[in-house]
Amino acid sequence: MTVKAALRSQAVETPSWAYGNSGTRFKVFAQPGVPRTPQEKLDDAARVHEHTGVAPSVALHIPWDRVTGADGYAALAAYAKERGLRLGAINANVFQDDDYKLGSVTHPDPAVRRKALAHLMECVDIMDATGSRDLKLWFSDGTNYPGQDDVRERQDRLAEALAAVYERLGEGQRMLLEYKLFEPAFYHMDVPDWGTAYAHCLRLGDRAQVVVDTGHHAPGTNIEFIVAMLLREGKLGGFDFNSRFYADDDLMVGAADPFQLFRLMYEVVRGGGFGPDVAFMLDQCHNIEPKIPAIIRSVMNVQEATAKALLVDREALAAAQRDGDVLGANAVLMDAYNTDVRPLLAEVREEMGLDPDPVAAYRRSGWAERIVAERVGGTQAGWGA
Amino acid sequence: MTVKAALRSQAVETPSWAYGNSGTRFKVFAQPGVPRTPQEKLDDAARVHEHTGVAPSVALHIPWDRVTGADGYAALAAYAKERGLRLGAINANVFQDDDYKLGSVTHPDPAVRRKALAHLMECVDIMDATGSRDLKLWFSDGTNYPGQDDVRERQDRLAEALAAVYERLGEGQRMLLEYKLFEPAFYHMDVPDWGTAYAHCLRLGDRAQVVVDTGHHAPGTNIEFIVAMLLREGKLGGFDFNSRFYADDDLMVGAADPFQLFRLMYEVVRGGGFGPDVAFMLDQCHNIEPKIPAIIRSVMNVQEATAKALLVDREALAAAQRDGDVLGANAVLMDAYNTDVRPLLAEVREEMGLDPDPVAAYRRSGWAERIVAERVGGTQAGWGA
Amino acid sequence: MTVKAALRSQAVETPSWAYGNSGTRFKVFAQPGVPRTPQEKLDDAARVHEHTGVAPSVALHIPWDRVTGADGYAALAAYAKERGLRLGAINANVFQDDDYKLGSVTHPDPAVRRKALAHLMECVDIMDATGSRDLKLWFSDGTNYPGQDDVRERQDRLAEALAAVYERLGEGQRMLLEYKLFEPAFYHMDVPDWGTAYAHCLRLGDRAQVVVDTGHHAPGTNIEFIVAMLLREGKLGGFDFNSRFYADDDLMVGAADPFQLFRLMYEVVRGGGFGPDVAFMLDQCHNIEPKIPAIIRSVMNVQEATAKALLVDREALAAAQRDGDVLGANAVLMDAYNTDVRPLLAEVREEMGLDPDPVAAYRRSGWAERIVAERVGGTQAGWGA
Amino acid sequence: MTVKAALRSQAVETPSWAYGNSGTRFKVFAQPGVPRTPQEKLDDAARVHEHTGVAPSVALHIPWDRVTGADGYAALAAYAKERGLRLGAINANVFQDDDYKLGSVTHPDPAVRRKALAHLMECVDIMDATGSRDLKLWFSDGTNYPGQDDVRERQDRLAEALAAVYERLGEGQRMLLEYKLFEPAFYHMDVPDWGTAYAHCLRLGDRAQVVVDTGHHAPGTNIEFIVAMLLREGKLGGFDFNSRFYADDDLMVGAADPFQLFRLMYEVVRGGGFGPDVAFMLDQCHNIEPKIPAIIRSVMNVQEATAKALLVDREALAAAQRDGDVLGANAVLMDAYNTDVRPLLAEVREEMGLDPDPVAAYRRSGWAERIVAERVGGTQAGWGA
Repeated sequence: MTVKAALRSQAVETPSWAYGNSGTRFKVFAQPGVPRTPQEKLDDAARVHEHTGVAPSVALHIPWDRVTGADGYAALAAYAKERGLRLGAINANVFQDDDYKLGSVTHPDPAVRRKALAHLMECVDIMDATGSRDLKLWFSDGTNYPGQDDVRERQDRLAEALAAVYERLGEGQRMLLEYKLFEPAFYHMDVPDWGTAYAHCLRLGDRAQVVVDTGHHAPGTNIEFIVAMLLREGKLGGFDFNSRFYADDDLMVGAADPFQLFRLMYEVVRGGGFGPDVAFMLDQCHNIEPKIPAIIRSVMNVQEATAKALLVDREALAAAQRDGDVLGANAVLMDAYNTDVRPLLAEVREEMGLDPDPVAAYRRSGWAERIVAERVGGTQAGWGA
Repeated sequence: MTVKAALRSQAVETPSWAYGNSGTRFKVFAQPGVPRTPQEKLDDAARVHEHTGVAPSVALHIPWDRVTGADGYAALAAYAKERGLRLGAINANVFQDDDYKLGSVTHPDPAVRRKALAHLMECVDIMDATGSRDLKLWFSDGTNYPGQDDVRERQDRLAEALAAVYERLGEGQRMLLEYKLFEPAFYHMDVPDWGTAYAHCLRLGDRAQVVVDTGHHAPGTNIEFIVAMLLREGKLGGFDFNSRFYADDDLMVGAADPFQLFRLMYEVVRGGGFGPDVAFMLDQCHNIEPKIPAIIRSVMNVQEATAKALLVDREALAAAQRDGDVLGANAVLMDAYNTDVRPLLAEVREEMGLDPDPVAAYRRSGWAERIVAERVGGTQAGWGA
Repeated sequence: MTVKAALRSQAVETPSWAYGNSGTRFKVFAQPGVPRTPQEKLDDAARVHEHTGVAPSVALHIPWDRVTGADGYAALAAYAKERGLRLGAINANVFQDDDYKLGSVTHPDPAVRRKALAHLMECVDIMDATGSRDLKLWFSDGTNYPGQDDVRERQDRLAEALAAVYERLGEGQRMLLEYKLFEPAFYHMDVPDWGTAYAHCLRLGDRAQVVVDTGHHAPGTNIEFIVAMLLREGKLGGFDFNSRFYADDDLMVGAADPFQLFRLMYEVVRGGGFGPDVAFMLDQCHNIEPKIPAIIRSVMNVQEATAKALLVDREALAAAQRDGDVLGANAVLMDAYNTDVRPLLAEVREEMGLDPDPVAAYRRSGWAERIVAERVGGTQAGWGA
Repeated sequence: MTVKAALRSQAVETPSWAYGNSGTRFKVFAQPGVPRTPQEKLDDAARVHEHTGVAPSVALHIPWDRVTGADGYAALAAYAKERGLRLGAINANVFQDDDYKLGSVTHPDPAVRRKALAHLMECVDIMDATGSRDLKLWFSDGTNYPGQDDVRERQDRLAEALAAVYERLGEGQRMLLEYKLFEPAFYHMDVPDWGTAYAHCLRLGDRAQVVVDTGHHAPGTNIEFIVAMLLREGKLGGFDFNSRFYADDDLMVGAADPFQLFRLMYEVVRGGGFGPDVAFMLDQCHNIEPKIPAIIRSVMNVQEATAKALLVDREALAAAQRDGDVLGANAVLMDAYNTDVRPLLAEVREEMGLDPDPVAAYRRSGWAERIVAERVGGTQAGWGA
C-alpha cells in the first residue's frame, strides 16, 4: 500500500462528548451552538467527516447519549448513516451516579456492583442495536485514602464484573479496557496502568483488548513502548487520543508533543497496528476553543503524524540499527519527522475530492454561525457532572 | 515557649468552602447536611474549633460567601464572633464568570481585566468590613495551547493589576499571592511557581507575601526548601495545606505524605515562621469523606506534625550537622518524627479543657445527625462550577 | 503467628555491593575501611546480622564478587556460613563490558547477545555452587535515541535469552526479573515497568518472578498497588529496597517516604507475601554516609515498617471498609502507622539476645575503627564503572 | 534583520567536556579517538565550527581543562584563535575533590568552603587570562537525607561565597548561576530552581545572571515560561542546552522534544534574548554516540529551532492573540513549527561558504578516522569521576 493509499484508508473516530461542553472542576465554560441532543452531535460530527474524509464514525457515551424508545438506538444509527457516518464504540459510564461515590464494579457494596454491571450489560444491548463492535470500559474506581478499601479485593470484584460482561459479548464484539493513573481517585485507581489492564484482558480472552489513552500515564512514561508491547502481545485494541503537558489535560492530540505522537504512530505502523483491528479514537476536551474546528485540527494532527510515520525509510532504518549506528538510525527517523507533510496531505485530500484545507473549508461553510443561530434554548450537552 | 505552650498557641484557619460540596470534573457527590449559607458554614467551623481548640478563624471565598446588605459582612463577622470564631483571609475568585475563559487580570481584553480588578478591589472592601488581614489571590489565569497568548505581556498585565490592588490595601492588610503549576490551565499558568510569585511580591513591597499551597508543585519538588527560602527572604505569608499523591489532589493534609508535612513544619519552626505572621490555612476538598470530621482530622494532622517538629532536639541536630555526621543528624530528625505524639496532644487538649479525642467527641456530639435532619431543602454550598 | 514471632522470623538480605564504594556519575567518594574482597564484604555483613539478627544472607554481584578456583564459590559459601551467613541471590551484570554499549541480551549483534547469555549461564553455575535460590536479572538494556534500535525486535531477543536461562535453572532455583523506568538508557528501557516483566515471566513459567525495586518507577506510581497485583497473580518474587525523592536515588530504604514503605509492607502482609517466597533484599548506595551503620539503619527501617504493618487491626479495618467508612478505615491504618514501634522492636531484639539498639551496639563494637586501621592498601570494592 | 541574517549571526558555544568521554554511574564507555588534552578538544571543536559556521567558541571546565605554566591559558587562547575559535565560559568544578563530599561553598566546615572559594577565584583568574566573559557556576551542593545539614544556613554560606566571587569579577565579566533540581544530591540541592538562582543574582547585581540548563527541571516544568520570566526581569544569562526524556539525561539538544526547543527559542526571540547577552551553550553527554557528529547535529538542531522561531508570523500571532482566537493563534505558531527549515538552513550555509550538509561534510573529511589513528596512548579526557 502506498503512503497515499494508507492515508486515504485511515479512520479516526470522534467522540460524541467532544462536541458538547466540558471543563475543569473550576468551571465549565459553555459555548454557543453546542449540541443539545445525540442527533445534533452527529450533525457536527458529519461536518468533521465531510471536511477531513477520515472521521467516519462516532463514539457514544451512555448515558450522555441515551435515547429512548424501542428502536431508539437503531434509529440513531440510521440517523448517522444518512449523514455518512456510523456509530462507533459504546462508552460505559459508571461514575456519575451518587451510588458510585466509592466505586462501581469494585464498590464494597454488592448492590452497587450489581447496578454497575447492569449498566455495562445495557451497553452491550446498545451495541447490538447500533452494530457497534467495541465496548469501551473506563472505570473511575479507586480510593482517595490509604486503607479506604481493600486494594486486592477490589481486583477480585473487578475481575468478576469483567468476566460477566465478556461472557455477554456477542459475535464480533470486543471489550476495550482502559487504564488511568489517577483522577478522579487520588490514592489508587483500580486499573492504573497497562500491566493491570493487560493482566485482566489476558485472563478474559482474545476479545478483551487494552485501550491506550495517551493522557493516562505517569510523567516520563514511554507510551510508544507500551504500544509496541501490546502489539507484540496481540492486545492493543485502540487509542483514546489527546495530549497533555501535565496530567490528563485532554488537549487536542498532537498539540503538546507532536514528536511523541509521531513516535507512537511509528510503532503502530511498525507493529502492524495500522488497520481496522486497532481503533483510533479521539477523547478530548475543548474547554476553551471552539469544538468542531478543534476536532478537525485534531484529526489533521493524527494524519500528519501518520504520514510522517509512513514516510520513515524502514530499510535505511533497519540497516543503521543493524550496524549499531546510533546517530544514523536516529537521523533516518528524524528525517521523516522533519518533513513537512502538509502538502502531501493536501494532495491526498484533493484526490479524495476534499478541500485541501479542512479548517478553512469549515470556516467558509457557515456551519459555525448556523448552529449558534439555530441551537437556541434547550440544554446543552455536557458531562453532566 | 515550651512545646505544649506552642501547641496551645497554634492557629489553623479552616476554609469555608471545605464545608461545602466539592468534587472532580467527573462528578461532585453531594453530601447530606452540607451548609447552604455562609452562616451554616460558620456553624460547622465552630464545631471544628470547639473540638480542636486551634481553629479559631475561617477563610471566606468571594463570591461563594457573598452576603448582601449594607452591613452584610459586618453582620457575618459578628455571627462568627458569637460562635467563638473570627473571619480570616478573603479569597478572591476571578475564574468562574464566563468572561474569564481566557483569563482574568491577564486577559487580552482590557474590559475583562477591569472587571477582574474591580472584583479584587471589592475583596479589599470586604476585608475592611470583616477586619480580615489577608487577601489571598490565586489566579487560574494561563493558556492551554502554545501561542494562545503572549506569555510575557500577560506578566505585564498581572503586574499592573497586582500593583493597583497593593496600592488599595489598608493599614495592617496584606496580599498573599499563590502559585500553581497547572490546572485549570494546561499549557502555562501565569503564576506557576514560587519564583514568579516571589518576583512579583518583591516589586510590590513588604505587604505582598507568597502563599504556599502544598499541592501546587511539580512532582519531586522539595517544598520545605521553598519554605526555608521564603522565610529567609521574609516573603512567606502563609500556607494552603492539603496533600496529594499525584497533582492538586486536595486530600486531607498529612494524609499522603506525613513525613513531608513534618519536614515542612520543621523548616517553619527552624526559620522562625511559627507565629502569627505566617497564616496556616487549610485548602482541601472532601469529595468522598464527611467534611467536618475530615477537617478535624486535618487540623489534628497539622498539630501532630507541628508537635514532632517542635520535639526535634535542635542542639543535638546542630552538633551532628556541624560534625558532618550524616546518619547522626538524620537520626535526630527521625527520632522526633518516629515519636508518637498523640498522647502529648491529648494532654494539651485536656489542659485546654477539651476532649482528648476530637473526632470521638464530634461523633458523640450529634452534630452530624442534626445537620442532616435540619438542613433540608435549599441549595447546598459548593464551588458553583 | 504473633507480631513478635513474625518480626523474629523476618529476613532481610543485604547486598555485597552496598558495603563497597558507590557514587554518582559526578564523583565516587571513597570511604576508609571499605572491603577489598568478597570475603571482607561478608565480614561486614556479618556485623549487620550480628546486631540486627534479621540479615542472615548476602546477595552477590557477578563479576564484582567473582572468585576464582575450582571451589571458589563453595569456599565463599563456607566462609559465609562460618560467620553465620548464607549467600543469597546471584545478581548478573551485563552492563559493564565495552561490548554492552548498545545492549546485552537485546543487542543488535548476535555475538554480543551470546556473550551476555553466557554470563547469565555462568551465574546459574555459580548458584549451583553457592546453593543460591534466586538469579536476579536486571538489564540496563535500552536506547538513548528514538529510532536507535527496533524496540520490538529487542523484546524478541530478550524473550529468547530469558527462555534459555529459564531452561537452564535447576531444581529449586528461580529467576527474578527486575524492571526499571530509566537510567542508564534514556529513551527506552527494554524492561521499563512491571507489566513488561510480568508479561515475560508469565510466558516463562512459575519459577520466573518479578522483583520490585522501589526506586525504579515513574513519579506518582503507586508501588504498593503493584505489590498487591503481583501477589494476586502469584508473580511477586521479591524486593530491592531503597528509597528516593526523585529518581533511582538509592537512598536508605524508608528514608524518603516511610509512610510509603509502611503501605507497601501492609500489602505484603495482607497479600500473604510475608514469608520465604518473597525475597526482601536491600539495593542501595551509601554515597556519603558510612556503609555498615547505614545498612543497619536500613534493616531497622524495614523492621519498623513491618511491625507497623503487622499491627494494623485487620478486623477493624475490614469492618470500616465494608461500611464504606472512608475516614474510619483510613484511621485504622494510620493508628498503626502512628504507633512508635521502636520499644516493641527493642523488646524483640532483647528476646533474641541482641542489644536493643543495633546502631549503638555497632558503634561500641570498634569494628568501624578496626576496618579503617586494617584495610590499608589494595583496591577498594566498588562498581567498577 | 532578516531571518537568514539572524541565522548567520547565531553563535552556539560547545563544551570542551562533550568531546571527552562521559557516561552514567553504571559505565563510561570509552570511544576511540577521544581527545587527551585541552588542545585536542579544541581541534575537535574547530571541526564543528568549520562545518557549521556557528560554533565559534568553546567552554572550558576547570580542572578538566587545566593547563600549567605562567602563560598556559593565554597560550590555550592563542591555540584556539589559530583554529578560528575563542575560549568561552569558564566552568568551575567544586564537586570532584574528596573534600566536597558534603558540599563545597555550602559545606559545614569553613575550611572546605575556603578551598572551594579559592577555586572559584582561580577561575576568575583564568577568565582574565583567556578573555572569557562568563563564569559559569553550578554547584552540586546539597544533602541526601533530611536533617543532614541546615538548609537555611547553607543558603547563607552560599550567599557569602557568591558575594565574594561577584566582588572579584573584572570589567565586562559576568557570573552565570545555574540551578538543578537533583543529582548528585538526592534530598535537596542548594540551588534547585530558577527562583533560588534569581533571588541570589538579584542581590548580587546586574552582572549576576541565571543560566538555564534545559535538563535541570522537575517533570512538567514549562521551561519557556522561565525563559520569558528571566528575560522580563533582565536576568537570563544563558543556556546549557541538552535534552531529556526523564531526568538530567543530557541527550543531544532537540532530540527528546523538538517542539519544546522551538517554543523556548520562540520566547528567546520574542523576549529580545537573541543576541550576545544570552549565551547559547551546549552541555551534553554523548555516552554512546560518536561525539563530534553528535555535537554537529546538536548545533543543527538549535539552528532549526531558531529558524522556526524566527519564521513565526508575529503580526498574525499578535492579531489572533488580541482576538482571543485560541485555535488561530496556536495555528500561527504551529505553521512555523511544521515548516521544514532544512532547505533554508542549507541555503544559509551555502551563502556562508559551507557545505549544506555539515554531517556529511564531516563524514567525508576523514577526521573521524584520523583521530582514531593518531590519538593512541595517553589518557582520554573524561569527567574524572
